[in-house]
Amino acid sequence: MKPAHNFSAGPGILPAEVLQQASEACINFDNLNLSLLEISHRSKNFEAVMDESRALVKELLGIGDGWQVLFLGGGASLQFAMVPYNLLRTEGYAAYVNTGVWANKAIKEAKTIGNTKVIASSEDKKYTYVPKGFEIPADADYVHITSNNTIYGTQMHAFPQSPVPIVCDMSSDIFSRPVDGNKFGLIYAGAQKNMGPAGATMIALREDLLGKTGRKMLSMLDYAVHIKGGSMYNTPPVFSIYVSMLTLRWLKKNGGLAWIGKRNAEKSETMYAEIDRNSLFTGTTAVEDRSQMNATFVMTKPELEPEFDKMWKEAGISGLRGHRDVGGYRASLYNALPVESVKVLTDVMQAFEKKFA
Amino acid sequence: MKPAHNFSAGPGILPAEVLQQASEACINFDNLNLSLLEISHRSKNFEAVMDESRALVKELLGIGDGWQVLFLGGGASLQFAMVPYNLLRTEGYAAYVNTGVWANKAIKEAKTIGNTKVIASSEDKKYTYVPKGFEIPADADYVHITSNNTIYGTQMHAFPQSPVPIVCDMSSDIFSRPVDGNKFGLIYAGAQKNMGPAGATMIALREDLLGKTGRKMLSMLDYAVHIKGGSMYNTPPVFSIYVSMLTLRWLKKNGGLAWIGKRNAEKSETMYAEIDRNSLFTGTTAVEDRSQMNATFVMTKPELEPEFDKMWKEAGISGLRGHRDVGGYRASLYNALPVESVKVLTDVMQAFEKKFA
Repeated sequence: MKPAHNFSAGPGILPAEVLQQASEACINFDNLNLSLLEISHRSKNFEAVMDESRALVKELLGIGDGWQVLFLGGGASLQFAMVPYNLLRTEGYAAYVNTGVWANKAIKEAKTIGNTKVIASSEDKKYTYVPKGFEIPADADYVHITSNNTIYGTQMHAFPQSPVPIVCDMSSDIFSRPVDGNKFGLIYAGAQKNMGPAGATMIALREDLLGKTGRKMLSMLDYAVHIKGGSMYNTPPVFSIYVSMLTLRWLKKNGGLAWIGKRNAEKSETMYAEIDRNSLFTGTTAVEDRSQMNATFVMTKPELEPEFDKMWKEAGISGLRGHRDVGGYRASLYNALPVESVKVLTDVMQAFEKKFA
Repeated sequence: MKPAHNFSAGPGILPAEVLQQASEACINFDNLNLSLLEISHRSKNFEAVMDESRALVKELLGIGDGWQVLFLGGGASLQFAMVPYNLLRTEGYAAYVNTGVWANKAIKEAKTIGNTKVIASSEDKKYTYVPKGFEIPADADYVHITSNNTIYGTQMHAFPQSPVPIVCDMSSDIFSRPVDGNKFGLIYAGAQKNMGPAGATMIALREDLLGKTGRKMLSMLDYAVHIKGGSMYNTPPVFSIYVSMLTLRWLKKNGGLAWIGKRNAEKSETMYAEIDRNSLFTGTTAVEDRSQMNATFVMTKPELEPEFDKMWKEAGISGLRGHRDVGGYRASLYNALPVESVKVLTDVMQAFEKKFA
């Protein structure tokens, strides 16, 4: 089998050793002679997985007392609703920064629940940059930002100062660089980019933010219920949490956020250097807002796309086409993607230029 | 390795061949040279999984046009809220049958959303029987029942005639016996008993029931949104759906609901025969309402429990302790449990009687 170079935008690449361990756990988990898929989530073996997963998140984000970590089903899209449901007071309002499709989905759900104000937006330039220098109103219940926008390839390289709690959707760049969790009030992320497989969503939140809305709550949408249940109010997405734990273990073992931040910087610098150098490609986003996770680019001669597609597929590369909303190309450089895979891609881009420029 | 006899109440036993295929897909899915855990859910390979999963549900339940099948995250507990959210009119009310803890959770969520009426209950005898002969009011928006109650070991062996749509929580006996889906308006079930691993919930519903509440809807709680998105409005729980598909394939290949109904009857008859015969054990539920899925029983000399526990553990049996709310024992006899495992257990019970009676 030819080694694959997986640039998928998500669900994305996971470390080979994690996949191996996940595969083994499907047959025999923890030497129980039982599959992880057929044991009680209340067994001490799975309780240990849940505990370790939550502890690893706390350690990596540098958050401590007063913080809670949950792993829930339903995807980050459910968090678009749960955040305002739990934090937006009936008489209050929430501030949102609009950086694209996912931010808009979050805004839409918040509007169904209460009052919102979009305080900054990059819609005017099709979300190809990240708004900066905006003021966050001190009377908002919270401000919601999206740290990385996969579709457009933009990323916040600095987080705003805020007089109110910052809620951050980190679905596509969680644990990809050193981040001080204490600057936020709530962080959420679907597992399926840097953390694990689809099916689990991580929520880290300051517990003191809860209980202020006066809203009559549905249990499954109530963070307090899940906290009380130790993230097991109901049967959790066992397998996705286990694989997330393995991935976080891998991250910690190799050097944590400092290590991965350096590695991701190297990958994205290599990638953008080639995009900028190569006469047949051009980047699509404001240079200062380029994402270390998703490098988006288009071809200067779009009629050559089929030729390029043939070449990278032959090199064992997969998942390089851009999001269906914007087209072009997108190289997703998530944590588990090896530096070597980026070099394979830039080599293909160079060979392509040599042949067709 | 000693073969394990897995009587876990859920997540429960899955077919060995399914676990093997799941394990392989973690490394190389569909000969893509990529793990199932790291490919796009919008790839044609996973689209095929989703399509087949939904088609298998339709085929097994005998439902056709006008029905929709979804596989969502969040667990059956999220359905406790989604059912009334989508079906309970602001001016209407929903009828509920109270058969235990899970039914109560469903009732609690419905009450948060609108008006409910409990039309029958077995609370008077600690849920050890299934209410019968109750009348379903013709002006209710729907009636909600729970077909099997894992904690108490009760099961509905006949479904009521109803003038309004029946909503049935089949989490713990889905696909365990021949059932005509057309008798219902909506069926939901967490995957983790008979259908697959934790993390996915199946919902089969008649589309004509939707759109009648006038409620302003949150996207993720709106069945219509998920139907429109082909059960992929957001990233679905990919792995759990895949393993569910494998399990449904296994079921169909072996003879479908008729085959499994016969096999489950054989297992439960063997189990209850031993409970009734053995002088050291006694069943805990009304005989006519005994569950084919969860046989609950207690010891006549509870002081001997440690001795019995030792014996069944030595025989390679796991997951036999009763739910923490009721104690005693519970043999869960889900679809994938082999007839042989039941015989191993009844042999242990006989040897135990011989030694201690």
